[in-house]
Amino acid sequence: MQEFLPPRRLLLGPGPSTVHPRVLSAMSTPLLGHLDPAFLAVMNDIQTLLRQVFATTNRFTIAISGTGSAGMEASIVNLVEPGDTVIVGVNGVFGTRLATVVERCGGKAIRVAAPWGHIIEPEAIEAALQRSGPVKAVALVHAETSTGAWQPIEPVGKLCRTHNTLFIVDAVTSLGGVPVEVDRCGIDVCYSGTQKCLSCPPGLSPFTLSDRALSVIKHRRTPCQSWYLDMALIADYWTERNRAYHHTAPISMLYALREALRLVEEEGLPARYTRHQLNSDALVAGLMALGLTPLPPAGHRLPMLTCVTVPVHIDEAAVRAQLLETFGIEIGGGLGPLKGNVWRVGLMGESCTETNVLTLLNALEEIGIRSGWISSPGVALQAAARTYNRSHH
Amino acid sequence: MQEFLPPRRLLLGPGPSTVHPRVLSAMSTPLLGHLDPAFLAVMNDIQTLLRQVFATTNRFTIAISGTGSAGMEASIVNLVEPGDTVIVGVNGVFGTRLATVVERCGGKAIRVAAPWGHIIEPEAIEAALQRSGPVKAVALVHAETSTGAWQPIEPVGKLCRTHNTLFIVDAVTSLGGVPVEVDRCGIDVCYSGTQKCLSCPPGLSPFTLSDRALSVIKHRRTPCQSWYLDMALIADYWTERNRAYHHTAPISMLYALREALRLVEEEGLPARYTRHQLNSDALVAGLMALGLTPLPPAGHRLPMLTCVTVPVHIDEAAVRAQLLETFGIEIGGGLGPLKGNVWRVGLMGESCTETNVLTLLNALEEIGIRSGWISSPGVALQAAARTYNRSHH
Repeated sequence: MQEFLPPRRLLLGPGPSTVHPRVLSAMSTPLLGHLDPAFLAVMNDIQTLLRQVFATTNRFTIAISGTGSAGMEASIVNLVEPGDTVIVGVNGVFGTRLATVVERCGGKAIRVAAPWGHIIEPEAIEAALQRSGPVKAVALVHAETSTGAWQPIEPVGKLCRTHNTLFIVDAVTSLGGVPVEVDRCGIDVCYSGTQKCLSCPPGLSPFTLSDRALSVIKHRRTPCQSWYLDMALIADYWTERNRAYHHTAPISMLYALREALRLVEEEGLPARYTRHQLNSDALVAGLMALGLTPLPPAGHRLPMLTCVTVPVHIDEAAVRAQLLETFGIEIGGGLGPLKGNVWRVGLMGESCTETNVLTLLNALEEIGIRSGWISSPGVALQAAARTYNRSHH
Repeated sequence: MQEFLPPRRLLLGPGPSTVHPRVLSAMSTPLLGHLDPAFLAVMNDIQTLLRQVFATTNRFTIAISGTGSAGMEASIVNLVEPGDTVIVGVNGVFGTRLATVVERCGGKAIRVAAPWGHIIEPEAIEAALQRSGPVKAVALVHAETSTGAWQPIEPVGKLCRTHNTLFIVDAVTSLGGVPVEVDRCGIDVCYSGTQKCLSCPPGLSPFTLSDRALSVIKHRRTPCQSWYLDMALIADYWTERNRAYHHTAPISMLYALREALRLVEEEGLPARYTRHQLNSDALVAGLMALGLTPLPPAGHRLPMLTCVTVPVHIDEAAVRAQLLETFGIEIGGGLGPLKGNVWRVGLMGESCTETNVLTLLNALEEIGIRSGWISSPGVALQAAARTYNRSHH
């Protein structure tokens, strides 16, 4: 079997995003043992840097040894015991998955649904809290990667405090691209993924627990059904003095995360958020000039993930295939009921640049002109350029 | 925060082992999307290569997106339903953990115990099978990393066939260092880790399921309690034509595994097993010359993990600290009841070389002479050299 030489790709899908050469290089650092004092220092650094991006002082802020989906499962299996009720906002793939995970650990999921592409109205959560008996937690997806909807978090955090219930937030796609303010929004459990706006390879799930959530975990009646994701045990390795062996930490991935977080720190969070918003605005202007409308209503559109409805006269799968094969550009298709109906364009972390926006719009225009669904060349590029010009002046 | 520059380390502990520069370099390959046809080809290659090291034709042979402990959990949560009985061999940390995982998914664990360092006698498993009602599975640790015991597998595989029960084998530390013959030994579920004898960084768990196990999973009465590790869902991504998105694959880690498995293929499994045995023999000869006796009886000692009892006149923790700080050599201490009583020396994969054996023995001799528990220098090196000479002639 030969050495693997990957084709050139511009990653503008729903993740993974482009990984900075410094992060790629960090991964090839020789390994240390997972109990080596020098490696424990790496873990401490990661905790410090993660607290900054989560805007939290939570002592329990770590990276779980699995992808964002492992972070989702960890949130639920640690907090929810059999019979517990969890209110889950369901307006896309990831809310649907959250509810499934609740049920797989013996919890009762109360689904508060909204059409895909729309947000869950805080009033609907409030109504569910009022009509339900005791609720262990409310779980919401901050950035619904399957629809591009940007869920308001802060008002629901307030409701959770009022109703004395825990608040679980999926920030897989949002962390590092828009503010995820764990402490200010009263979030008790927040998990993310590394391969989105942090621009680190996939494989880890940044994860933070409030002291309130930690106390709930420590006073469970039943053991956590997952041994691998049991945060009461993992605390002994990540956050307690004893640094007790639980499982072997994914050393190289943690090297990568440390370097990716250093890059975030160097840019600064406010600049990073501004960059994501600007490039997204330009992309949306360009796509709209081509007749592609974002699925979520204005005001609820994520900057790092733009989900546009593809008109029926465009063969969406064929265009994606051409983008990949001819231009080396990856964008995402639709999931579940949106399959065949939408494109999902990610501008996440290192992938979120002016050059990439223009490169994609140009490729789409070329394909559209060849296929006959665009008549006048340059309209998308022009619309994007106008957006950039407005912001630069 | 500064760039991380690791201290120089020779990894001779219970894992991670030294990672070959080609594998480190593979990890810094630019990323592809997890649904990119070029990446799906990487997954296919990994399956092909893993089937070779597992000596199996199992179609369901994959790498789980978590460490070896995730592989253990996946084995149990997929096969065991509430109320199912599992016979577990318990003679160290990992057998103990297996039994815990069985109980955490509502199974009944029948523990067949042996003193730490000893194997589980197949007769004891047979007796347990005879006196128990219906048994869903027998679970054994092939290479007990906490004690260095090498568990016979083949006779238990036969018993499982006779008693029509599934056979689960933990091959975390054995895979790639001694034969793990899944098909020939009648193993239904086998999981491993990447950071031991495969010399890939930690973070993935090679995992294989027989058709019989897969059928049991597909006919469960209840859904698997873990969504993240649900092999019925993961099959759709790894082994079925539809390649349906489940969770984002850890791309860079899979690049690393592919390259690590290519190195295994280049060396050839028989040569690799011989190398592990020879260096282990030399190490044991050297350690015994220093008065350190392997914990397991002769005939049941793993080549890749040598666990020796440290006499009371040697301050084991102080020696390990000196090895790390003065010589940059990591070896492992004892876990659980063996804490403070043993050293665990790993000669795994790339770490398993003649040079490393001599380097460690020399360092131990220097420390022992300085501390007064060795009187005549060179005895350990001499004993190791004799072993190498015998084999080279």
